[in-house]
Amino acid sequence: MTDTATRPAPDTSPSPADRTGPVRLVDTRRTALLPATRGRVTGGLWAERRRVNREVSVTTGWDRLHEAGNFTNLELAAGRHEGTPYVGSLPFLDSDLYKWLEAVAWTLADPDLDAEGEARLEQFLDASTQVLEAAQAADGYLDSYFQVNFPGERFVQLAWGHELYCAGHLIQAAVALHRTRGDARLLDVARRVADLVVASFGSGEGRVDGIDGHPEVETALVELYRETGEQGYLDAARYFVDRRGHGLLAGHAFGSHYFQDHEPVREATSVEGHSVRQLYLLAGVADLYVEDGDESLIQAADRLWHEMVATKTYLTGGIGTHHTDEAFGDPYELTNERSYCETCAAIASVMFSWRMLMITGEARYADLVERTLYNGFLAGLSLDGQRYIYANPLQVREGHMAGGNDRDYARKPWFKCACCPPNVMRTLASLEHYVALGGAAGLRLHQFVSGSWTAPVGDGEATVAVETDYPWDGRVRVRVEDSPGTWGLTVRIPHWASGATLTVNGEPVQPTVADGWATVTRVWAAGDELVLDLPLEPRFTRADSRVDADRASVALERGPVVYCFEAVDNPGHRLDDVILDPTATVEVRSTDDGLPADVVTLAAPGRVRPRPAEGWWPYADASTAAPTDGEPVTLTAVPYYVWGNRAPGAMRIWTPAE
Amino acid sequence: MTDTATRPAPDTSPSPADRTGPVRLVDTRRTALLPATRGRVTGGLWAERRRVNREVSVTTGWDRLHEAGNFTNLELAAGRHEGTPYVGSLPFLDSDLYKWLEAVAWTLADPDLDAEGEARLEQFLDASTQVLEAAQAADGYLDSYFQVNFPGERFVQLAWGHELYCAGHLIQAAVALHRTRGDARLLDVARRVADLVVASFGSGEGRVDGIDGHPEVETALVELYRETGEQGYLDAARYFVDRRGHGLLAGHAFGSHYFQDHEPVREATSVEGHSVRQLYLLAGVADLYVEDGDESLIQAADRLWHEMVATKTYLTGGIGTHHTDEAFGDPYELTNERSYCETCAAIASVMFSWRMLMITGEARYADLVERTLYNGFLAGLSLDGQRYIYANPLQVREGHMAGGNDRDYARKPWFKCACCPPNVMRTLASLEHYVALGGAAGLRLHQFVSGSWTAPVGDGEATVAVETDYPWDGRVRVRVEDSPGTWGLTVRIPHWASGATLTVNGEPVQPTVADGWATVTRVWAAGDELVLDLPLEPRFTRADSRVDADRASVALERGPVVYCFEAVDNPGHRLDDVILDPTATVEVRSTDDGLPADVVTLAAPGRVRPRPAEGWWPYADASTAAPTDGEPVTLTAVPYYVWGNRAPGAMRIWTPAE
Repeated sequence: MTDTATRPAPDTSPSPADRTGPVRLVDTRRTALLPATRGRVTGGLWAERRRVNREVSVTTGWDRLHEAGNFTNLELAAGRHEGTPYVGSLPFLDSDLYKWLEAVAWTLADPDLDAEGEARLEQFLDASTQVLEAAQAADGYLDSYFQVNFPGERFVQLAWGHELYCAGHLIQAAVALHRTRGDARLLDVARRVADLVVASFGSGEGRVDGIDGHPEVETALVELYRETGEQGYLDAARYFVDRRGHGLLAGHAFGSHYFQDHEPVREATSVEGHSVRQLYLLAGVADLYVEDGDESLIQAADRLWHEMVATKTYLTGGIGTHHTDEAFGDPYELTNERSYCETCAAIASVMFSWRMLMITGEARYADLVERTLYNGFLAGLSLDGQRYIYANPLQVREGHMAGGNDRDYARKPWFKCACCPPNVMRTLASLEHYVALGGAAGLRLHQFVSGSWTAPVGDGEATVAVETDYPWDGRVRVRVEDSPGTWGLTVRIPHWASGATLTVNGEPVQPTVADGWATVTRVWAAGDELVLDLPLEPRFTRADSRVDADRASVALERGPVVYCFEAVDNPGHRLDDVILDPTATVEVRSTDDGLPADVVTLAAPGRVRPRPAEGWWPYADASTAAPTDGEPVTLTAVPYYVWGNRAPGAMRIWTPAE
Repeated sequence: MTDTATRPAPDTSPSPADRTGPVRLVDTRRTALLPATRGRVTGGLWAERRRVNREVSVTTGWDRLHEAGNFTNLELAAGRHEGTPYVGSLPFLDSDLYKWLEAVAWTLADPDLDAEGEARLEQFLDASTQVLEAAQAADGYLDSYFQVNFPGERFVQLAWGHELYCAGHLIQAAVALHRTRGDARLLDVARRVADLVVASFGSGEGRVDGIDGHPEVETALVELYRETGEQGYLDAARYFVDRRGHGLLAGHAFGSHYFQDHEPVREATSVEGHSVRQLYLLAGVADLYVEDGDESLIQAADRLWHEMVATKTYLTGGIGTHHTDEAFGDPYELTNERSYCETCAAIASVMFSWRMLMITGEARYADLVERTLYNGFLAGLSLDGQRYIYANPLQVREGHMAGGNDRDYARKPWFKCACCPPNVMRTLASLEHYVALGGAAGLRLHQFVSGSWTAPVGDGEATVAVETDYPWDGRVRVRVEDSPGTWGLTVRIPHWASGATLTVNGEPVQPTVADGWATVTRVWAAGDELVLDLPLEPRFTRADSRVDADRASVALERGPVVYCFEAVDNPGHRLDDVILDPTATVEVRSTDDGLPADVVTLAAPGRVRPRPAEGWWPYADASTAAPTDGEPVTLTAVPYYVWGNRAPGAMRIWTPAE
């Protein structure tokens, strides 16, 4: 009936090793990362998540931050409070406030925010800004941890002090607020901080030749440069990128790769160390490339992205295997049981991939953004928007001993080190940025989100309205609401989609299909409708043979959603003994068992392996047969991101297939 | 030609769940754990390891301890030194000295120690004892960390203070020295410490009702009771065992199970938390049972040993999966890439299993001691006796990023937290304890070690001389050198040994075979020789199907030795892509490539899987074929314990079989 737009199978794509040449640029630099769409999310999964974010998470953030003591040092620095400073080993508390302020800023631009909510957020914003203005020193310095605990000590404890990291998040909040509300007060505070950084750091005499242990200021300074046009900010960003990798932070117990300070980014061939640090750095590297065009930067970013995705990324888009140093493991070291997969690392991955998408226009970046948003990111937040998780395991065993720092997999209202909660908030609050892009050639839909998207196309501007129940349903309707004439409407064909079809006004079309994009170029008029149908057959997935953790196992996916088996849905079946049959047909079902009504669950045939007569020693001669048969069962799978919202218990994604 | 003594296959052994009944006691209590043999190791692998330990490790320990600052606080407390105390977060530094002193004590009993070495060790011992005598407070308190840094603060920081842990190691050193040399000076110091502990702790008024975060004092107090007959020490040990598990140490970030304080040991059904702490505790529980006969203690110890071995023990005998909290993982969570397997935990396992062996007489305990000694323990020490490792991974990938606290797998001369090196020293120095046991029924050989062993049998005493090249050769000659008449000579038939044969004076015999032991009871006369032949065919081993990390993989073993593949022996073959054929014949070879001349290496046929054309995404549809064929190769395997002694590079034990 219709034409088929099929993506090539992954294995035939170019290898990371081949990707040292220049990267194709779709968009001009300079403005590529400025908001290219005016979007509004109107329905479906993301609208609901944003509603909860707006009404629950962001709103209660003010109380959570106060309870956690994030305002204590700032109020002490502002002279508004006398008491005991918050010391601990948490020099980054100011940044939690800043990330939340960024979430407030984006939320204030949400058309669905009601007047009461708006007034409340403005009150929070005003009160916060007043504290920050009062706390800021005359010369612009603002970091309450050092101001209160180590007055006069500035830019000395660079490895662990997080001063520039905090500055970066302040800048990002201020830029967001300036963009959404034209607010200059917070931007003034941020600029004075940035000016002091610019004046203090560098290789000249009397300057600090150093970098922050946690990258973040790089991307923030480029953003501030975009917002203000001030060259000094861009130069400072370049300085920080250039100086990293020369051992300035050496001597830490985790090794200099923890800080990505073991080799300059232009020479690096692998992502290493603390995964959030690595990806915040690479987001800054991509930003810097956009503004100054240094090809060696984008080559490095592209090379490292591919190394990360091909060898160090979980099926969920989660990254960072190790708990101890919150770091990437070795290539293919993707243990499910102890997957760290920090929620912040999923966010950092989205930040980096989105920039690479905007720069190169390659669909694989959008594919990873989508996978990460629906799985590794969304799992970090409870369905009710009130609880968060730091580490996102891909497997929880029967008999799991919970408790303690990193063995308690239940989501929590807040953390002592609360980087993740406000990071989730700002990501959901700015989600519309990830959906579409306009340009000379037309309008491109990166993600399938119900809403309205206005973007420059050719010489004018187009508006499209998207209606879809994706990811539960594969039909995506794109109705043109406003059009300047002839332009290309481009939709992504996800890498897992085989047999996608397109119609325009009900008629099958033969789009231009290339590298994951399908484009229909024509005279578009208001009322025209493009319909994309993505087949959402459940599918079994296997891993690269080098991923030892997934050997002889399969995972169940449908569309961009990774599924898992949870004990609560499979009573009586021991999830540690389950075997799936990857040749069997998986049934699609609805659910009413404590999950949102739209969530699609799956029913997969399998077996439960009989337990052997247990010996004292769990290893046996390989010539003896392991039990392979077992009682046939039908197992219920739920989207990974909803796991742990009902009852505690075992959970697994990768499941033996033999 | 000869009779065959075959052990039952592991899977038919009783399940841990069945093991709640009373445990069969082979030996009487009370003296079971006192040295039952007078042994001398005279040849083979262990003699060489003990020579290196004596001449290199123990001897240079004095300098290492001084360089590391272990004497600093003690000398400050003794008023012999002025300077900066050693603080850090290392309240356990005194214990490193004590463990080394214990090694000195056992080494002083080594008949192979020459006069020069003896004089040197006595000098060290005298100087150390003088410092300890001078540092000890008038009331017996001795803990230099608290004396110097927090004078007057005693028994308050119990969760992390390690005061009783240090006291325990002092006691063990003093007991060892008293047994080997009759030295009373150190025992006096230790008794005064113990007397203060006895007087300070308890549930009475004015006493501290508490336990130490790190068990150790329990086993030490029982030993001190044995050495002195002082009931108060035994009562204190019972108090510390009884009070653990009631949440006295609650509130730590790792959770109370880290300290085994989440439930009383008699109620526990699983080993949990910090593995060394758990096993030191259980060693103390076993010791306490020996002396006071409380059956609930031995039932708990037996239940927990079986749970640990069946679900949380690596093929190497290594235990403790997690890096972050040095803890046991969940059941069957036995990741190879991040196996923590602390050397100290292997030692603790030997301590616990040996006590269970002495109590119950069950061969499986001796089997685990053997496996742990040859693999998980011995890997912790370099062949030259100068370098140690904390964490013993079972797999190192290609492209491993080394550096930092727990990613540098190279053995090191010493550590800031140097618990492992002197623990290795005291274990090697006292190795003869693990070999044999005498009793009413006769003499039993737990381990196969060349040497001379004298033990009580019946009403008299027997001496046997063992000659063997085990574990490289399966022939073990046991020559009777002195005999009081009729008694049983018992040898262990390891659980992996199928087809073992026995002769006496060259004639096949039909021994009494039960549960892993073969006994020949007869009138033994000097000159009689029993020869045990253990078949040492290389064998492929598979893991329980619940060990996800080992799925569809095999390991190569020969006798008690676990083998690994190391990059240095397999140049040109990518160890991440190797597939073994478990039906193939493995050849036994000698080696001269940088390993000790007696080490047996193996040559195993396999294939090197072709690498797929790499895509950007490492996951593919399960219906597409993963590469299974590959270039045939012959791979060289070496004993796991010698890995990492030549060149850095990839290493693996478990290897895909498909």
